Amino acid sequence: MIASNKIINFNAGPAALPQEVVQQAAEAVLQYADSGTSILSIHHRGKYFLDILEESKQLVKELCGLNDDYEVLWLQGGGRMQFAMIPMNFLNEGQTAYYIDSGSWASDAIAHAQLYGNVQVLSSSKDHNYQQLPEIPSTITSNAAYLHLTSNNTIYGTQLQELPTVDVPLVVDMSSDIFSKRIDYSKCSLFYAVAQKNMGPAGATLVVLRKDMLSRIKRQLAPILDFKKQVEKNSVLNTAPVFPIYVSLLTLRWIKEKGIEQIEADNRQKADLLYAEVQRNTLFNCQVEDKDRSMMNVCFNGIDKTIEEAFINFAQENGCTNIKGHRYVGGLRVSLYNAISLEDVKYFIAVMQEFELSRH
Amino acid sequence: MIASNKIINFNAGPAALPQEVVQQAAEAVLQYADSGTSILSIHHRGKYFLDILEESKQLVKELCGLNDDYEVLWLQGGGRMQFAMIPMNFLNEGQTAYYIDSGSWASDAIAHAQLYGNVQVLSSSKDHNYQQLPEIPSTITSNAAYLHLTSNNTIYGTQLQELPTVDVPLVVDMSSDIFSKRIDYSKCSLFYAVAQKNMGPAGATLVVLRKDMLSRIKRQLAPILDFKKQVEKNSVLNTAPVFPIYVSLLTLRWIKEKGIEQIEADNRQKADLLYAEVQRNTLFNCQVEDKDRSMMNVCFNGIDKTIEEAFINFAQENGCTNIKGHRYVGGLRVSLYNAISLEDVKYFIAVMQEFELSRH
Repeated sequence: MIASNKIINFNAGPAALPQEVVQQAAEAVLQYADSGTSILSIHHRGKYFLDILEESKQLVKELCGLNDDYEVLWLQGGGRMQFAMIPMNFLNEGQTAYYIDSGSWASDAIAHAQLYGNVQVLSSSKDHNYQQLPEIPSTITSNAAYLHLTSNNTIYGTQLQELPTVDVPLVVDMSSDIFSKRIDYSKCSLFYAVAQKNMGPAGATLVVLRKDMLSRIKRQLAPILDFKKQVEKNSVLNTAPVFPIYVSLLTLRWIKEKGIEQIEADNRQKADLLYAEVQRNTLFNCQVEDKDRSMMNVCFNGIDKTIEEAFINFAQENGCTNIKGHRYVGGLRVSLYNAISLEDVKYFIAVMQEFELSRH
Repeated sequence: MIASNKIINFNAGPAALPQEVVQQAAEAVLQYADSGTSILSIHHRGKYFLDILEESKQLVKELCGLNDDYEVLWLQGGGRMQFAMIPMNFLNEGQTAYYIDSGSWASDAIAHAQLYGNVQVLSSSKDHNYQQLPEIPSTITSNAAYLHLTSNNTIYGTQLQELPTVDVPLVVDMSSDIFSKRIDYSKCSLFYAVAQKNMGPAGATLVVLRKDMLSRIKRQLAPILDFKKQVEKNSVLNTAPVFPIYVSLLTLRWIKEKGIEQIEADNRQKADLLYAEVQRNTLFNCQVEDKDRSMMNVCFNGIDKTIEEAFINFAQENGCTNIKGHRYVGGLRVSLYNAISLEDVKYFIAVMQEFELSRH
């Protein structure tokens, strides 16, 4: 059928990276700049890496429109480490933290926070199988330690359109939609994102926090788990994951060159086209509430399990990989992170149409 | 002077990797096996990565001569995360853990453990500026939670020749000498090593523990900090650092092909040659107690600071990089991990001799 010479990787994470980033990353593995050595062997306290670190921090602030009130950290351990570190650092004894339960990751973050203090779940869409976003109360003014949100729910395919304005520190897990569109990052006191979706390979986690948050840390923590110590040591409290950070920097440069507005326009078009095809195609449907649909992860179903399995195989044969839904929910999931091009999506839609024809 | 076409990276970590490993790693960044996608974008729960994980675990056990009583984990966070996780998991309330203070890393591990419980430092060589190893009491039988050792002290250039036999669980930080020689790993209840010295790039930490240790975990911990949960989830409790683990696997294959005995013989010869030259050369001397000298990190001094600085520059001009001593102690440090060849060491010795000539 449709000729495809390449594999399109629609994985939800680790996800596809821009081809030029992959190329530059491979070159750096052979030799980094004029160092005469692989990026894998450069010193984490030497000039080569400190320049990478500094440029990445500046680019993050620039792309997020943030000033020097914010600190940029690269940590290890992924989202789950942040689920633990955030309450460890900011949910002190006697305090309460607010959480919005918009899906499996949010609910996991809640379970982590409960290990450290009082948690109040302000709203949840669990009863709707997370196929819509829970309401966020329109005014939140209180002494709560913070309000924690997940901005995009990879498993269910829902996404917050705008961050709320609240009078408590806003903490947002942006793992799967950071840098995918214009976002008012300055509403956040802290936001975090694992690299392996819109930024780089697995192994680095970006944390951006407003400096005034640091004075709220009261617990005595192991330095590596303490945001204050990590800030003091400029992300090299110990050996940083040099390569994942470098690849993230390469992607940040690519994002800057393309421009967030262009990226947003492309992402909007990609998602609109795909949702339209899911709706048109007689073999598929999307259960996700219209207004809450994610631009990043298009989650949908076949009209039955047999169709889903057959389509996963058909797509695979035609070069489209990793479109199986998350093991918690089944179905199909096509992730449209920044590195997936409009052409990739058009090709995938052609595959869906070809599949439909083949079944009639 | 001596013609050198290549840079020899004597860094203590992130350290040089075998050239064939670097080459294979770069190829995998472009495309992993027949996946049609970069290793940076393969799914951490897909067959490609699960095969990598399984092979790496089997190879670790094989190279360490361990049976199925042991579990192999790949974690994130480096040595300092282990400094915290070990007491968090194994030093329960009312218990005491023993530590041997053989240097800065050991002493940092002690400070971490003190956050979680009682610590007894059995011996320390701090008063000797850590230039010799502290005595390990010959019989240790007690109810202590564990005894923690650092087998090789990168900053001071000392190394334990043999692991002790003790009647408490033995926990060893082997970050800088794992796989460098034959070691009776079965004496350990747990050992750990960051990848970036003898194994791979920064971003993965190997932890090997005897299964019976898991029943000792009493605290309720965040899953990512809990060895029991990590074992249950086979190191993919969350997205594993795919690339650092893959590069470590490549190095493990290289180690297996070469054979630990050959590696040990080479490492012995490399270290003997270099220590002999340090002793012979009129511009340098080594303060480290003879019997405790490390095969991995040769730490020495110039006869004065001027000589040290001049030599660092001279070595750099001749392609030998990262020989500056650790910022805590100054002086010179030449790390001779597995990837440094006998020829590299002979070349470095020639550079030392040329430098000596140039100063007379």
